[in-house]
Amino acid sequence: MKAGERLDFAAELAAAAAAADGELDRLLPVVEGPEGRLFEVMRYAALGPGKRMRPFLVLNSARLFNVPSQHALRVAAAIEMVHSYSLVHDDLPAMDDDDLRRGRPTAHIQFDEATAILAGDALLTLAFEVLADPATHPNATIRAELVGELARGAGGRGMVGGQMLDLLAAHRDFDLGGIARLERLKTGALIGFSCGAGAILANANEASRAALYAYAHDLGFAFQIADDLLDAEGSEAQTGKRVGKDAAAGKATVVSLLGVEEARQHAQMLARQAVSHLDLFREMADPLRAAAHFVVDRRA
Amino acid sequence: MKAGERLDFAAELAAAAAAADGELDRLLPVVEGPEGRLFEVMRYAALGPGKRMRPFLVLNSARLFNVPSQHALRVAAAIEMVHSYSLVHDDLPAMDDDDLRRGRPTAHIQFDEATAILAGDALLTLAFEVLADPATHPNATIRAELVGELARGAGGRGMVGGQMLDLLAAHRDFDLGGIARLERLKTGALIGFSCGAGAILANANEASRAALYAYAHDLGFAFQIADDLLDAEGSEAQTGKRVGKDAAAGKATVVSLLGVEEARQHAQMLARQAVSHLDLFREMADPLRAAAHFVVDRRA
Repeated sequence: MKAGERLDFAAELAAAAAAADGELDRLLPVVEGPEGRLFEVMRYAALGPGKRMRPFLVLNSARLFNVPSQHALRVAAAIEMVHSYSLVHDDLPAMDDDDLRRGRPTAHIQFDEATAILAGDALLTLAFEVLADPATHPNATIRAELVGELARGAGGRGMVGGQMLDLLAAHRDFDLGGIARLERLKTGALIGFSCGAGAILANANEASRAALYAYAHDLGFAFQIADDLLDAEGSEAQTGKRVGKDAAAGKATVVSLLGVEEARQHAQMLARQAVSHLDLFREMADPLRAAAHFVVDRRA
Repeated sequence: MKAGERLDFAAELAAAAAAADGELDRLLPVVEGPEGRLFEVMRYAALGPGKRMRPFLVLNSARLFNVPSQHALRVAAAIEMVHSYSLVHDDLPAMDDDDLRRGRPTAHIQFDEATAILAGDALLTLAFEVLADPATHPNATIRAELVGELARGAGGRGMVGGQMLDLLAAHRDFDLGGIARLERLKTGALIGFSCGAGAILANANEASRAALYAYAHDLGFAFQIADDLLDAEGSEAQTGKRVGKDAAAGKATVVSLLGVEEARQHAQMLARQAVSHLDLFREMADPLRAAAHFVVDRRA
Protein backbone atom coordinates (compact mmCIF):
# COMPACT_ATOMS: atom_id res chain seq x y z
CA MET A 1 0.00 0.00 0.00
CA LYS A 2 2.67 2.47 0.99
CA ALA A 3 4.81 1.34 -1.95
CA GLY A 4 1.86 1.69 -4.29
CA GLU A 5 1.19 5.18 -2.96
CA ARG A 6 4.76 6.12 -3.63
CA LEU A 7 4.59 4.80 -7.20
CA ASP A 8 1.43 6.77 -7.97
CA PHE A 9 2.86 9.73 -6.21
CA ALA A 10 5.87 10.17 -8.49
CA ALA A 11 3.56 10.35 -11.49
CA GLU A 12 1.13 12.69 -9.74
CA LEU A 13 3.95 14.97 -8.63
CA ALA A 14 5.46 15.07 -12.13
CA ALA A 15 2.06 15.85 -13.66
CA ALA A 16 1.45 18.67 -11.19
CA ALA A 17 4.94 20.06 -11.84
CA ALA A 18 4.42 20.01 -15.61
CA ALA A 19 1.06 21.76 -15.30
CA ALA A 20 2.44 24.40 -12.92
CA ASP A 21 5.45 25.02 -15.17
CA GLY A 22 3.16 25.51 -18.14
CA GLU A 23 1.28 28.16 -16.20
CA LEU A 24 4.51 29.80 -14.97
CA ASP A 25 5.78 29.85 -18.54
CA ARG A 26 2.63 31.70 -19.64
CA LEU A 27 2.78 34.16 -16.74
CA LEU A 28 6.51 34.86 -17.15
CA PRO A 29 6.92 35.64 -20.85
CA VAL A 30 10.25 36.25 -22.51
CA VAL A 31 10.46 40.05 -22.74
CA GLU A 32 12.42 41.99 -25.37
CA GLY A 33 14.32 45.18 -24.64
CA PRO A 34 16.69 46.16 -21.85
CA GLU A 35 14.45 44.94 -19.01
CA GLY A 36 14.36 41.51 -20.64
CA ARG A 37 17.20 40.57 -18.30
CA LEU A 38 14.89 40.94 -15.30
CA PHE A 39 12.35 38.50 -16.71
CA GLU A 40 15.15 36.16 -17.74
CA VAL A 41 16.24 35.90 -14.10
CA MET A 42 12.64 35.53 -12.93
CA ARG A 43 12.23 32.62 -15.34
CA TYR A 44 15.59 31.15 -14.28
CA ALA A 45 14.48 31.20 -10.66
CA ALA A 46 10.89 30.04 -11.05
CA LEU A 47 11.24 27.54 -13.91
CA GLY A 48 14.45 25.82 -12.85
CA PRO A 49 14.43 22.19 -11.79
CA GLY A 50 12.42 21.50 -8.65
CA LYS A 51 9.85 19.19 -7.15
CA ARG A 52 7.07 21.81 -7.23
CA MET A 53 5.78 20.49 -3.93
CA ARG A 54 3.73 23.61 -3.18
CA PRO A 55 1.95 23.63 -6.57
CA PHE A 56 1.22 19.94 -6.00
CA LEU A 57 -0.41 20.78 -2.66
CA VAL A 58 -2.47 23.60 -4.19
CA LEU A 59 -3.67 21.46 -7.09
CA ASN A 60 -4.53 18.48 -4.91
CA SER A 61 -6.24 20.50 -2.20
CA ALA A 62 -8.29 22.18 -4.94
CA ARG A 63 -9.19 18.80 -6.41
CA LEU A 64 -10.84 17.78 -3.14
CA PHE A 65 -13.52 20.38 -3.91
CA ASN A 66 -13.60 20.07 -7.72
CA VAL A 67 -12.17 23.56 -8.20
CA PRO A 68 -11.68 24.25 -11.96
CA SER A 69 -8.06 23.55 -12.78
CA GLN A 70 -7.48 26.89 -14.54
CA HIS A 71 -8.12 28.65 -11.23
CA ALA A 72 -6.01 26.29 -9.13
CA LEU A 73 -3.14 26.50 -11.63
CA ARG A 74 -2.87 30.27 -11.25
CA VAL A 75 -2.69 29.94 -7.48
CA ALA A 76 -0.13 27.15 -7.86
CA ALA A 77 1.99 29.39 -10.08
CA ALA A 78 1.67 32.30 -7.64
CA ILE A 79 2.84 30.22 -4.69
CA GLU A 80 5.80 28.89 -6.68
CA MET A 81 6.76 32.49 -7.53
CA VAL A 82 6.79 33.34 -3.83
CA HIS A 83 8.77 30.20 -3.00
CA SER A 84 11.27 30.98 -5.78
CA TYR A 85 11.71 34.59 -4.69
CA SER A 86 12.40 33.44 -1.13
CA LEU A 87 15.12 31.08 -2.37
CA VAL A 88 16.75 33.79 -4.51
CA HIS A 89 16.91 36.21 -1.59
CA ASP A 90 17.87 33.46 0.89
CA ASP A 91 20.84 32.48 -1.31
CA LEU A 92 22.26 36.03 -1.45
CA PRO A 93 25.76 36.63 -0.05
CA ALA A 94 24.34 38.68 2.85
CA MET A 95 21.95 35.84 3.72
CA ASP A 96 22.92 32.14 3.38
CA ASP A 97 25.55 32.91 0.71
CA ASP A 98 24.81 29.84 -1.42
CA ASP A 99 26.24 29.31 -4.88
CA LEU A 100 24.32 26.14 -5.76
CA ARG A 101 20.55 25.61 -5.89
CA ARG A 102 18.60 22.87 -7.61
CA GLY A 103 21.86 21.68 -9.16
CA ARG A 104 22.59 25.00 -10.87
CA PRO A 105 24.38 28.22 -9.94
CA THR A 106 22.16 30.41 -7.75
CA ALA A 107 20.61 33.46 -9.43
CA HIS A 108 23.15 35.97 -8.17
CA ILE A 109 26.01 33.73 -9.35
CA GLN A 110 24.50 33.04 -12.77
CA PHE A 111 23.55 36.69 -13.28
CA ASP A 112 24.51 39.31 -10.69
CA GLU A 113 23.47 40.26 -7.20
CA ALA A 114 21.51 43.41 -8.04
CA THR A 115 19.47 41.66 -10.70
CA ALA A 116 18.83 38.74 -8.33
CA ILE A 117 17.48 41.09 -5.66
CA LEU A 118 15.20 42.80 -8.19
CA ALA A 119 14.05 39.55 -9.79
CA GLY A 120 13.06 38.28 -6.34
CA ASP A 121 11.14 41.48 -5.67
CA ALA A 122 9.38 41.22 -9.03
CA LEU A 123 8.42 37.55 -8.50
CA LEU A 124 6.85 38.35 -5.13
CA THR A 125 4.95 41.27 -6.64
CA LEU A 126 3.77 39.28 -9.64
CA ALA A 127 2.34 36.58 -7.35
CA PHE A 128 -0.10 39.12 -5.92
CA GLU A 129 -0.91 40.49 -9.36
CA VAL A 130 -1.80 36.97 -10.49
CA LEU A 131 -4.02 36.28 -7.47
CA ALA A 132 -5.87 39.61 -7.78
CA ASP A 133 -6.67 39.05 -11.46
CA PRO A 134 -10.27 38.01 -12.26
CA ALA A 135 -8.88 35.06 -14.24
CA THR A 136 -7.93 33.46 -10.89
CA HIS A 137 -11.53 33.41 -9.66
CA PRO A 138 -14.69 35.26 -10.73
CA ASN A 139 -15.52 36.04 -7.07
CA ALA A 140 -13.52 39.07 -5.89
CA THR A 141 -14.02 38.16 -2.22
CA ILE A 142 -12.17 34.93 -2.85
CA ARG A 143 -9.40 36.73 -4.77
CA ALA A 144 -8.94 39.22 -1.94
CA GLU A 145 -8.89 36.38 0.59
CA LEU A 146 -6.19 34.58 -1.43
CA VAL A 147 -4.10 37.77 -1.49
CA GLY A 148 -4.57 38.35 2.24
CA GLU A 149 -3.76 34.77 3.20
CA LEU A 150 -0.69 34.57 0.97
CA ALA A 151 0.55 37.91 2.32
CA ARG A 152 0.05 36.75 5.91
CA GLY A 153 1.83 33.45 5.18
CA ALA A 154 4.71 35.05 3.30
CA GLY A 155 5.27 38.18 5.42
CA GLY A 156 6.90 39.26 8.64
CA ARG A 157 4.66 37.09 10.78
CA GLY A 158 5.09 34.17 8.38
CA MET A 159 7.87 33.11 6.04
CA VAL A 160 10.02 36.25 6.25
CA GLY A 161 9.67 36.22 10.03
CA GLY A 162 10.95 32.64 9.92
CA GLN A 163 13.90 33.66 7.75
CA MET A 164 14.69 36.35 10.31
CA LEU A 165 14.64 33.76 13.11
CA ASP A 166 16.80 31.49 10.97
CA LEU A 167 19.44 34.22 10.74
CA LEU A 168 19.41 34.47 14.52
CA ALA A 169 19.47 30.68 15.00
CA ALA A 170 23.13 30.66 14.02
CA HIS A 171 23.83 32.87 17.00
CA ARG A 172 21.30 31.78 19.57
CA ASP A 173 20.70 28.60 21.44
CA PHE A 174 17.23 27.70 20.26
CA ASP A 175 15.54 24.80 22.02
CA LEU A 176 13.17 22.39 20.30
CA GLY A 177 10.22 24.71 20.88
CA GLY A 178 12.11 27.63 19.36
CA ILE A 179 13.11 25.56 16.35
CA ALA A 180 9.55 24.31 15.87
CA ARG A 181 8.33 27.89 15.89
CA LEU A 182 11.02 28.95 13.41
CA GLU A 183 10.14 26.13 11.02
CA ARG A 184 6.41 26.74 11.36
CA LEU A 185 7.02 30.27 10.15
CA LYS A 186 9.78 29.70 7.62
CA THR A 187 8.38 26.67 5.81
CA GLY A 188 5.05 25.95 7.45
CA ALA A 189 3.28 29.19 6.64
CA LEU A 190 3.60 28.83 2.85
CA ILE A 191 2.78 25.13 3.00
CA GLY A 192 -0.25 26.09 5.06
CA PHE A 193 -1.35 28.50 2.35
CA SER A 194 -0.71 25.88 -0.35
CA CYS A 195 -2.96 23.38 1.40
CA GLY A 196 -5.59 25.92 2.40
CA ALA A 197 -5.80 27.48 -1.08
CA GLY A 198 -8.10 24.77 -2.42
CA ALA A 199 -10.53 25.40 0.41
CA ILE A 200 -10.42 29.16 -0.18
CA LEU A 201 -11.00 28.72 -3.93
CA ALA A 202 -14.00 26.49 -3.15
CA ASN A 203 -15.26 28.65 -0.29
CA ALA A 204 -15.24 25.40 1.68
CA ASN A 205 -16.66 24.97 5.16
CA GLU A 206 -14.71 25.52 8.36
CA ALA A 207 -14.20 21.82 9.07
CA SER A 208 -12.53 21.26 5.70
CA ARG A 209 -10.30 24.30 6.15
CA ALA A 210 -9.28 23.29 9.65
CA ALA A 211 -8.44 19.76 8.48
CA LEU A 212 -6.24 21.06 5.66
CA TYR A 213 -4.42 23.55 7.87
CA ALA A 214 -3.83 20.82 10.49
CA TYR A 215 -2.45 18.54 7.76
CA ALA A 216 -0.22 21.36 6.50
CA HIS A 217 1.01 22.13 10.01
CA ASP A 218 2.36 18.62 10.54
CA LEU A 219 3.48 18.19 6.93
CA GLY A 220 5.47 21.41 6.95
CA PHE A 221 7.46 20.48 10.04
CA ALA A 222 8.07 16.96 8.74
CA PHE A 223 9.25 18.47 5.46
CA GLN A 224 11.72 20.74 7.22
CA ILE A 225 13.15 17.99 9.41
CA ALA A 226 13.65 15.90 6.27
CA ASP A 227 15.45 18.87 4.73
CA ASP A 228 17.71 19.16 7.76
CA LEU A 229 18.43 15.41 7.60
CA LEU A 230 19.45 15.81 3.96
CA ASP A 231 21.70 18.70 4.92
CA ALA A 232 23.29 16.52 7.60
CA GLU A 233 23.49 13.27 5.67
CA GLY A 234 22.83 13.86 1.97
CA SER A 235 25.25 14.65 -0.83
CA GLU A 236 25.30 17.58 -3.22
CA ALA A 237 24.61 15.21 -6.10
CA GLN A 238 21.37 14.12 -4.39
CA THR A 239 20.13 17.49 -3.22
CA GLY A 240 21.44 19.85 -5.90
CA LYS A 241 22.64 22.23 -3.21
CA ARG A 242 25.49 22.49 -0.75
CA VAL A 243 25.13 20.21 2.28
CA GLY A 244 26.56 20.24 5.78
CA LYS A 245 25.98 23.97 5.98
CA ASP A 246 23.90 23.92 9.16
CA ALA A 247 26.55 22.11 11.18
CA ALA A 248 29.33 24.29 9.73
CA ALA A 249 27.36 27.39 10.71
CA GLY A 250 26.73 26.03 14.20
CA LYS A 251 23.02 26.34 13.47
CA ALA A 252 20.53 24.75 15.83
CA THR A 253 18.19 22.35 13.98
CA VAL A 254 15.96 19.47 15.02
CA VAL A 255 18.77 17.17 13.88
CA SER A 256 21.40 18.89 16.02
CA LEU A 257 19.08 18.85 19.00
CA LEU A 258 17.64 15.32 18.74
CA GLY A 259 20.27 13.50 16.73
CA VAL A 260 19.74 11.85 13.33
CA GLU A 261 17.80 8.80 14.46
CA GLU A 262 15.34 10.54 16.75
CA ALA A 263 14.84 13.35 14.23
CA ARG A 264 13.97 10.77 11.56
CA GLN A 265 11.46 9.10 13.89
CA HIS A 266 9.96 12.47 14.74
CA ALA A 267 9.47 13.27 11.05
CA GLN A 268 7.82 9.86 10.48
CA MET A 269 5.49 10.48 13.40
CA LEU A 270 4.56 13.90 12.03
CA ALA A 271 3.83 12.41 8.60
CA ARG A 272 1.46 9.83 10.13
CA GLN A 273 -0.16 12.56 12.17
CA ALA A 274 -0.56 14.74 9.05
CA VAL A 275 -2.35 11.90 7.27
CA SER A 276 -4.69 11.41 10.20
CA HIS A 277 -6.24 14.84 9.63
CA LEU A 278 -7.49 13.92 6.16
CA ASP A 279 -10.12 11.32 7.05
CA LEU A 280 -13.10 13.49 6.14
CA PHE A 281 -11.95 13.69 2.51
CA ARG A 282 -11.87 9.86 2.18
CA GLU A 283 -10.02 8.50 -0.87
CA MET A 284 -10.07 11.91 -2.59
CA ALA A 285 -7.15 12.84 -0.33
CA ASP A 286 -4.92 9.91 -1.31
CA PRO A 287 -2.47 12.14 -3.22
CA LEU A 288 -2.07 14.32 -0.12
CA ARG A 289 -1.57 11.21 2.03
CA ALA A 290 1.09 9.96 -0.38
CA ALA A 291 2.74 13.38 -0.24
CA ALA A 292 3.20 13.07 3.52
CA HIS A 293 5.01 9.76 3.15
CA PHE A 294 7.07 11.06 0.24
CA VAL A 295 8.20 14.10 2.14
CA VAL A 296 9.87 12.13 4.90
CA ASP A 297 11.21 9.34 2.68
CA ARG A 298 12.68 11.55 -0.04
CA ARG A 299 16.40 11.54 -0.76
CA ALA A 300 16.59 14.87 -2.63
CA MET B 1 -1.65 82.78 -6.16
CA LYS B 2 1.28 80.48 -6.66
CA ALA B 3 2.83 81.68 -3.40
CA GLY B 4 -0.46 81.15 -1.61
CA GLU B 5 -0.70 77.68 -3.02
CA ARG B 6 2.76 76.95 -1.73
CA LEU B 7 1.92 78.23 1.72
CA ASP B 8 -1.19 76.08 1.98
CA PHE B 9 0.70 73.22 0.53
CA ALA B 10 3.29 72.95 3.29
CA ALA B 11 0.50 72.62 5.86
CA GLU B 12 -1.46 70.19 3.70
CA LEU B 13 1.62 68.06 3.11
CA ALA B 14 2.49 68.02 6.82
CA ALA B 15 -1.07 67.05 7.74
CA ALA B 16 -1.09 64.22 5.22
CA ALA B 17 2.28 63.01 6.46
CA ALA B 18 1.13 63.01 10.08
CA ALA B 19 -2.03 61.10 9.21
CA ALA B 20 -0.14 58.55 7.11
CA ASP B 21 2.47 58.08 9.85
CA GLY B 22 -0.28 57.44 12.39
CA GLU B 23 -1.66 54.71 10.17
CA LEU B 24 1.81 53.24 9.51
CA ASP B 25 2.44 53.23 13.25
CA ARG B 26 -0.76 51.22 13.80
CA LEU B 27 0.01 48.80 10.97
CA LEU B 28 3.64 48.28 12.02
CA PRO B 29 3.45 47.50 15.73
CA VAL B 30 6.46 47.04 17.95
CA VAL B 31 6.81 43.27 18.22
CA GLU B 32 8.36 41.41 21.15
CA GLY B 33 10.50 38.30 20.77
CA PRO B 34 13.37 37.48 18.47
CA GLU B 35 11.63 38.60 15.26
CA GLY B 36 11.08 42.01 16.83
CA ARG B 37 14.23 43.11 15.03
CA LEU B 38 12.51 42.62 11.67
CA PHE B 39 9.63 44.92 12.61
CA GLU B 40 12.10 47.40 14.10
CA VAL B 41 13.79 47.74 10.70
CA MET B 42 10.44 47.93 8.92
CA ARG B 43 9.48 50.80 11.22
CA TYR B 44 12.88 52.44 10.77
CA ALA B 45 12.43 52.37 6.99
CA ALA B 46 8.76 53.33 6.75
CA LEU B 47 8.50 55.83 9.62
CA GLY B 48 11.76 57.71 9.12
CA PRO B 49 11.73 61.34 8.06
CA GLY B 50 10.28 61.93 4.61
CA LYS B 51 7.88 64.11 2.70
CA ARG B 52 5.24 61.36 2.31
CA MET B 53 4.48 62.64 -1.17
CA ARG B 54 2.77 59.42 -2.24
CA PRO B 55 0.43 59.32 0.79
CA PHE B 56 -0.39 62.97 0.08
CA LEU B 57 -1.37 62.06 -3.48
CA VAL B 58 -3.51 59.14 -2.32
CA LEU B 59 -5.31 61.19 0.32
CA ASN B 60 -5.92 64.13 -1.98
CA SER B 61 -7.02 62.05 -4.96
CA ALA B 62 -9.43 60.25 -2.60
CA ARG B 63 -10.75 63.59 -1.30
CA LEU B 64 -11.85 64.53 -4.84
CA PHE B 65 -14.47 61.80 -4.51
CA ASN B 66 -15.23 62.09 -0.78
CA VAL B 67 -13.76 58.67 -0.05
CA PRO B 68 -13.87 58.00 3.73
CA SER B 69 -10.47 58.87 5.16
CA GLN B 70 -10.05 55.57 7.02
CA HIS B 71 -10.04 53.79 3.64
CA ALA B 72 -7.71 56.25 1.94
CA LEU B 73 -5.30 56.16 4.89
CA ARG B 74 -4.79 52.42 4.58
CA VAL B 75 -3.98 52.78 0.89
CA ALA B 76 -1.67 55.70 1.70
CA ALA B 77 0.14 53.55 4.26
CA ALA B 78 0.39 50.64 1.81
CA ILE B 79 1.96 52.78 -0.91
CA GLU B 80 4.45 54.25 1.57
CA MET B 81 5.43 50.70 2.59
CA VAL B 82 6.14 49.87 -1.05
CA HIS B 83 8.07 53.10 -1.53
CA SER B 84 10.10 52.44 1.64
CA TYR B 85 10.89 48.86 0.66
CA SER B 86 12.12 50.05 -2.74
CA LEU B 87 14.47 52.55 -1.06
CA VAL B 88 15.82 49.91 1.35
CA HIS B 89 16.61 47.52 -1.50
CA ASP B 90 17.86 50.31 -3.78
CA ASP B 91 20.34 51.44 -1.12
CA LEU B 92 21.88 47.96 -0.70
CA PRO B 93 25.60 47.53 -1.47
CA ALA B 94 24.82 45.45 -4.56
CA MET B 95 22.47 48.16 -5.86
CA ASP B 96 23.19 51.88 -5.37
CA ASP B 97 25.36 51.27 -2.29
CA ASP B 98 24.10 54.26 -0.34
CA ASP B 99 24.88 54.84 3.33
CA LEU B 100 22.67 57.90 3.86
CA ARG B 101 18.92 58.25 3.32
CA ARG B 102 16.57 60.89 4.66
CA GLY B 103 19.47 62.21 6.73
CA ARG B 104 20.04 58.94 8.57
CA PRO B 105 22.12 55.83 7.96
CA THR B 106 20.43 53.55 5.45
CA ALA B 107 18.78 50.42 6.87
CA HIS B 108 21.61 48.03 6.05
CA ILE B 109 24.10 50.41 7.71
CA GLN B 110 22.00 51.01 10.82
CA PHE B 111 21.17 47.30 11.17
CA ASP B 112 22.67 44.77 8.79
CA GLU B 113 22.30 43.77 5.18
CA ALA B 114 20.39 40.54 5.68
CA THR B 115 17.83 42.17 7.94
CA ALA B 116 17.47 45.06 5.49
CA ILE B 117 16.73 42.65 2.64
CA LEU B 118 14.13 40.82 4.74
CA ALA B 119 12.56 44.01 6.09
CA GLY B 120 12.11 45.23 2.52
CA ASP B 121 10.50 41.95 1.55
CA ALA B 122 8.17 42.11 4.55
CA LEU B 123 7.14 45.72 3.85
CA LEU B 124 6.23 44.86 0.27
CA THR B 125 4.24 41.84 1.44
CA LEU B 126 2.46 43.77 4.18
CA ALA B 127 1.31 46.39 1.67
CA PHE B 128 -0.70 43.74 -0.15
CA GLU B 129 -2.04 42.33 3.11
CA VAL B 130 -3.29 45.79 4.05
CA LEU B 131 -4.98 46.38 0.68
CA ALA B 132 -6.68 42.96 0.68
CA ASP B 133 -8.14 43.46 4.15
CA PRO B 134 -11.88 44.32 4.32
CA ALA B 135 -10.97 47.33 6.50
CA THR B 136 -9.55 48.97 3.36
CA HIS B 137 -12.88 48.85 1.53
CA PRO B 138 -16.08 46.85 2.03
CA ASN B 139 -16.24 46.06 -1.70
CA ALA B 140 -13.92 43.14 -2.51
CA THR B 141 -13.82 44.03 -6.22
CA ILE B 142 -12.26 47.35 -5.28
CA ARG B 143 -9.79 45.68 -2.91
CA ALA B 144 -8.72 43.23 -5.62
CA GLU B 145 -8.38 46.09 -8.10
CA LEU B 146 -6.16 48.00 -5.67
CA VAL B 147 -3.96 44.92 -5.23
CA GLY B 148 -3.74 44.33 -8.97
CA GLU B 149 -2.97 47.95 -9.80
CA LEU B 150 -0.34 48.29 -7.07
CA ALA B 151 1.29 45.03 -8.17
CA ARG B 152 1.36 46.18 -11.80
CA GLY B 153 2.81 49.55 -10.79
CA ALA B 154 5.40 48.09 -8.42
CA GLY B 155 6.47 45.01 -10.39
CA GLY B 156 8.69 44.01 -13.29
CA ARG B 157 6.75 46.08 -15.81
CA GLY B 158 6.61 49.01 -13.38
CA MET B 159 8.89 50.20 -10.60
CA VAL B 160 11.18 47.16 -10.42
CA GLY B 161 11.51 47.19 -14.22
CA GLY B 162 12.58 50.83 -13.91
CA GLN B 163 15.14 49.94 -11.23
CA MET B 164 16.49 47.31 -13.62
CA LEU B 165 16.80 49.89 -16.41
CA ASP B 166 18.45 52.26 -13.94
CA LEU B 167 21.13 49.66 -13.23
CA LEU B 168 21.76 49.41 -16.96
CA ALA B 169 21.73 53.19 -17.45
CA ALA B 170 25.16 53.39 -15.86
CA HIS B 171 26.48 51.20 -18.63
CA ARG B 172 24.39 52.16 -21.62
CA ASP B 173 23.96 55.33 -23.61
CA PHE B 174 20.29 56.08 -23.04
CA ASP B 175 18.79 58.89 -25.09
CA LEU B 176 16.04 61.18 -23.79
CA GLY B 177 13.34 58.72 -24.87
CA GLY B 178 15.08 55.91 -23.03
CA ILE B 179 15.45 58.02 -19.89
CA ALA B 180 11.80 59.08 -20.05
CA ARG B 181 10.79 55.44 -20.25
CA LEU B 182 13.05 54.52 -17.33
CA GLU B 183 11.63 57.29 -15.15
CA ARG B 184 8.06 56.49 -16.14
CA LEU B 185 8.63 52.98 -14.81
CA LYS B 186 10.87 53.70 -11.83
CA THR B 187 9.02 56.63 -10.31
CA GLY B 188 5.99 57.20 -12.50
CA ALA B 189 4.29 53.87 -11.99
CA LEU B 190 3.93 54.24 -8.20
CA ILE B 191 2.96 57.89 -8.50
CA GLY B 192 0.38 56.80 -11.05
CA PHE B 193 -1.04 54.32 -8.56
CA SER B 194 -1.01 56.94 -5.80
CA CYS B 195 -3.05 59.35 -7.92
CA GLY B 196 -5.32 56.67 -9.36
CA ALA B 197 -6.06 55.11 -5.97
CA GLY B 198 -8.68 57.69 -5.05
CA ALA B 199 -10.55 56.96 -8.26
CA ILE B 200 -10.37 53.21 -7.64
CA LEU B 201 -11.61 53.60 -4.04
CA ALA B 202 -14.54 55.67 -5.34
CA ASN B 203 -15.18 53.47 -8.35
CA ALA B 204 -14.98 56.73 -10.31
CA ASN B 205 -15.79 57.12 -13.99
CA GLU B 206 -13.30 56.67 -16.80
CA ALA B 207 -12.84 60.40 -17.42
CA SER B 208 -11.80 61.02 -13.82
CA ARG B 209 -9.40 58.09 -13.86
CA ALA B 210 -7.83 59.17 -17.15
CA ALA B 211 -7.38 62.74 -15.85
CA LEU B 212 -5.64 61.53 -12.69
CA TYR B 213 -3.35 59.15 -14.56
CA ALA B 214 -2.44 61.91 -17.04
CA TYR B 215 -1.67 64.24 -14.12
CA ALA B 216 0.44 61.53 -12.48
CA HIS B 217 2.28 60.83 -15.71
CA ASP B 218 3.54 64.40 -16.02
CA LEU B 219 3.99 64.87 -12.28
CA GLY B 220 6.12 61.74 -11.95
CA PHE B 221 8.55 62.79 -14.65
CA ALA B 222 8.77 66.33 -13.28
CA PHE B 223 9.43 64.86 -9.84
CA GLN B 224 12.27 62.71 -11.14
CA ILE B 225 13.92 65.54 -13.07
CA ALA B 226 13.79 67.64 -9.88
CA ASP B 227 15.42 64.73 -8.06
CA ASP B 228 18.18 64.57 -10.65
CA LEU B 229 18.68 68.34 -10.38
CA LEU B 230 19.08 68.00 -6.61
CA ASP B 231 21.60 65.20 -7.16
CA ALA B 232 23.52 67.47 -9.54
CA GLU B 233 23.22 70.71 -7.61
CA GLY B 234 21.95 70.07 -4.08
CA SER B 235 23.86 69.38 -0.90
CA GLU B 236 23.66 66.46 1.47
CA ALA B 237 22.35 68.78 4.17
CA GLN B 238 19.41 69.72 1.92
CA THR B 239 18.56 66.29 0.56
CA GLY B 240 19.47 64.00 3.43
CA LYS B 241 21.25 61.69 1.02
CA ARG B 242 24.50 61.58 -0.90
CA VAL B 243 24.55 63.83 -3.96
CA GLY B 244 26.57 63.88 -7.17
CA LYS B 245 26.22 60.14 -7.46
CA ASP B 246 24.73 60.08 -10.95
CA ALA B 247 27.60 62.02 -12.49
CA ALA B 248 30.17 59.97 -10.56
CA ALA B 249 28.55 56.79 -11.86
CA GLY B 250 28.48 58.13 -15.42
CA LYS B 251 24.73 57.65 -15.33
CA ALA B 252 22.63 59.16 -18.08
CA THR B 253 19.88 61.43 -16.69
CA VAL B 254 17.75 64.21 -18.10
CA VAL B 255 20.19 66.64 -16.49
CA SER B 256 23.25 65.06 -18.13
CA LEU B 257 21.47 65.00 -21.50
CA LEU B 258 19.84 68.46 -21.51
CA GLY B 259 22.00 70.40 -19.10
CA VAL B 260 20.79 71.99 -15.83
CA GLU B 261 18.93 74.95 -17.31
CA GLU B 262 17.00 73.11 -19.97
CA ALA B 263 16.20 70.28 -17.55
CA ARG B 264 14.77 72.80 -15.08
CA GLN B 265 12.62 74.34 -17.82
CA HIS B 266 11.45 70.91 -18.90
CA ALA B 267 10.38 70.09 -15.34
CA GLN B 268 8.49 73.39 -15.08
CA MET B 269 6.73 72.69 -18.36
CA LEU B 270 5.75 69.22 -17.16
CA ALA B 271 4.36 70.65 -13.90
CA ARG B 272 2.17 73.11 -15.82
CA GLN B 273 1.06 70.32 -18.10
CA ALA B 274 0.23 68.12 -15.09
CA VAL B 275 -1.97 70.86 -13.64
CA SER B 276 -3.79 71.26 -16.95
CA HIS B 277 -5.25 67.74 -16.64
CA LEU B 278 -7.12 68.58 -13.44
CA ASP B 279 -9.69 71.06 -14.79
CA LEU B 280 -12.66 68.77 -14.39
CA PHE B 281 -12.15 68.60 -10.62
CA ARG B 282 -12.32 72.42 -10.29
CA GLU B 283 -11.11 73.87 -6.98
CA MET B 284 -11.28 70.46 -5.28
CA ALA B 285 -7.97 69.66 -6.99
CA ASP B 286 -6.09 72.70 -5.65
CA PRO B 287 -3.90 70.58 -3.34
CA LEU B 288 -2.88 68.43 -6.31
CA ARG B 289 -2.14 71.57 -8.35
CA ALA B 290 0.00 72.93 -5.52
CA ALA B 291 1.81 69.59 -5.36
CA ALA B 292 2.88 69.94 -8.99
CA HIS B 293 4.45 73.32 -8.31
CA PHE B 294 6.03 72.11 -5.09
CA VAL B 295 7.62 69.13 -6.77
CA VAL B 296 9.63 71.19 -9.21
CA ASP B 297 10.44 74.04 -6.79
CA ARG B 298 11.52 71.89 -3.86
CA ARG B 299 15.06 72.08 -2.55
CA ALA B 300 15.05 68.75 -0.68
